[in-house]
Amino acid sequence: MKAAVLRAGRIGVEHVPEPVPEAGLIVVRPLVCGICGSDLHARDHAPHLCNLLHRAGFKGFMDPDQPAVMGHEYCCEVLESKGDLKAGDRVVSPPFLTGPQGIVLLGYSNTYPGAFAERMLLHEQSCIRVPDDVPTEMAALTEPLAVAVHAVAEAQPGPDAAYAVIGCGPVGLFVIARLRALGLGPILAIEPNPARRAMAEQMGADAVIAPNASAAGEWWDDVDLPLGLSDAMAVDAATRRRSRAIVFECVGKPGMLMGAAVGAPVGATIVVVGNCMEDDTLEPAFLLQKSLTLRFVFAYSNDEFAQAFAMIRERPDRLQAMVSATVGLGDVNVAFDTLTSGASAVKILVKPDL
Amino acid sequence: MKAAVLRAGRIGVEHVPEPVPEAGLIVVRPLVCGICGSDLHARDHAPHLCNLLHRAGFKGFMDPDQPAVMGHEYCCEVLESKGDLKAGDRVVSPPFLTGPQGIVLLGYSNTYPGAFAERMLLHEQSCIRVPDDVPTEMAALTEPLAVAVHAVAEAQPGPDAAYAVIGCGPVGLFVIARLRALGLGPILAIEPNPARRAMAEQMGADAVIAPNASAAGEWWDDVDLPLGLSDAMAVDAATRRRSRAIVFECVGKPGMLMGAAVGAPVGATIVVVGNCMEDDTLEPAFLLQKSLTLRFVFAYSNDEFAQAFAMIRERPDRLQAMVSATVGLGDVNVAFDTLTSGASAVKILVKPDL
Repeated sequence: MKAAVLRAGRIGVEHVPEPVPEAGLIVVRPLVCGICGSDLHARDHAPHLCNLLHRAGFKGFMDPDQPAVMGHEYCCEVLESKGDLKAGDRVVSPPFLTGPQGIVLLGYSNTYPGAFAERMLLHEQSCIRVPDDVPTEMAALTEPLAVAVHAVAEAQPGPDAAYAVIGCGPVGLFVIARLRALGLGPILAIEPNPARRAMAEQMGADAVIAPNASAAGEWWDDVDLPLGLSDAMAVDAATRRRSRAIVFECVGKPGMLMGAAVGAPVGATIVVVGNCMEDDTLEPAFLLQKSLTLRFVFAYSNDEFAQAFAMIRERPDRLQAMVSATVGLGDVNVAFDTLTSGASAVKILVKPDL
Repeated sequence: MKAAVLRAGRIGVEHVPEPVPEAGLIVVRPLVCGICGSDLHARDHAPHLCNLLHRAGFKGFMDPDQPAVMGHEYCCEVLESKGDLKAGDRVVSPPFLTGPQGIVLLGYSNTYPGAFAERMLLHEQSCIRVPDDVPTEMAALTEPLAVAVHAVAEAQPGPDAAYAVIGCGPVGLFVIARLRALGLGPILAIEPNPARRAMAEQMGADAVIAPNASAAGEWWDDVDLPLGLSDAMAVDAATRRRSRAIVFECVGKPGMLMGAAVGAPVGATIVVVGNCMEDDTLEPAFLLQKSLTLRFVFAYSNDEFAQAFAMIRERPDRLQAMVSATVGLGDVNVAFDTLTSGASAVKILVKPDL
């Protein structure tokens, strides 16, 4: 079969062996698959990513010296099944295989192909059938949306909080959409790119500004958050409309953590969703004086994946604007270049049969 | 009256004006007052501390170019009162004055003296009377214990968690004592100084080790914490005895945050109590892959101060071993030097009439 193969830092179309299903696995045909920020990093810095995961205790990442087929934000068509699914059914699933082979991250494995290919294997039991009224492109957004579902859940959100989202790339936009779907707000979005600011409004942000510490500070003043270091220091907290602030850091570049800490009100929770792959400098005493929390979040549970799908199923049109372009297997490497260049493109989908 | 005055980075005994009470304030006689780690920093780096607090939004800190009388961990004798207290009563209180003068941090003010003096002013309404069976020295430990009460409360502890305390200076030891008083455990203490390791055992740590990443790793294995990045990756979590880890970072030096992150299990909450006044380097992607939380905690509420006092009142002997020495006003500067040198001394109390 044809697949877009990552080999020595470049992705090109190759003929690779057909995947052969073990017990519990089924053969499916990837219909579309989004390109993730982690894919970009894996193409350009695979040894770094591999080392990081090993140190963090996860040994199941691909060998960066061997070829691999990426793609983990997929919607697939079932080709054959012995279970409840039928050939022709469309499905999504969390991109993990667990079994005798250990834990495999689909899309970051040298053995099992990801979805930038004509065929791949999925756990039948993990598959969620996509109803006819949900477009394939929207179903493929389940996986990146699940990251936002998890991030928002870990923030322990509520009607007593005000929200800020720093960075309106895919991660930030999905976080805004998730907050809005849960009826939470007000939401301030902070983003330098005007096209992405427009997207943030479309996803439901209440206020959208360019990065500017003083403007963000004024916004917090406007939503009347408490300053209190302790109850002895809290000034008329009872008269204020919102009692806590939740900030989502969705950029993942050096300097963002301190930037968020400076802009956040005292006592805020900063949910770190953006994945900064370089070292960063922190001023711990400053964060301590402001009683800030940095909550680093990663991935999602199976239940959160199902919640993400339920949100898309409920209103598939909600995320329509997130898809910037669709490309074939032969254009995957160029699409990676486009996304790496920091253009306004949000989500580029790969369609293996294009 | 006599007071130990901080002036240009040195503390010496001087004669200063008697404090004159405004409405709501009473004149008291400091009986004993502990030296706090923040006092050491304020003597040696007052401009840095002042700048930090200003940037964090608190303007009530002393002018570092003007003299000040420090001391905020006090037990005092009431000299005269128009309220419920009587002359001769012993009292403790949170070291804040709030009123027309704004918020004053007692012990870090150029106007109101702290407790390294023969007399000071307290809010009568904030005072807690010390019963006869509670020794003065133990009552004076209420304030530093309140910091630990707050830190433990912010950790959202429970019987489902295992605990580690990194650094067994006063802050770490008070955290251990608080965890134990709440019936929480198991507690692992990590500390290089053998005398402090013995103190950690005395305060109730279940296991005490020298800093050594591999040994700490083994300990976590022993209490059977989950590894799971998500439920798809969590290995037989149901069979494990503890489902989450809470790590208290009580050292406050560069490198400790990453050290805690490396040693902590996936999903752990690292409560940052140690106040690192220098910049520190973080590897955000590593913390993200491990889904760690850094919860920076500072000060305490009035209610937590009262909880700390209740803990001492219940069993005053519990913290007896924390007092390393008692000195007079003339020896304050030397006591600061002793503590700054990193000796085994835990809490040195200043007794103004010694």
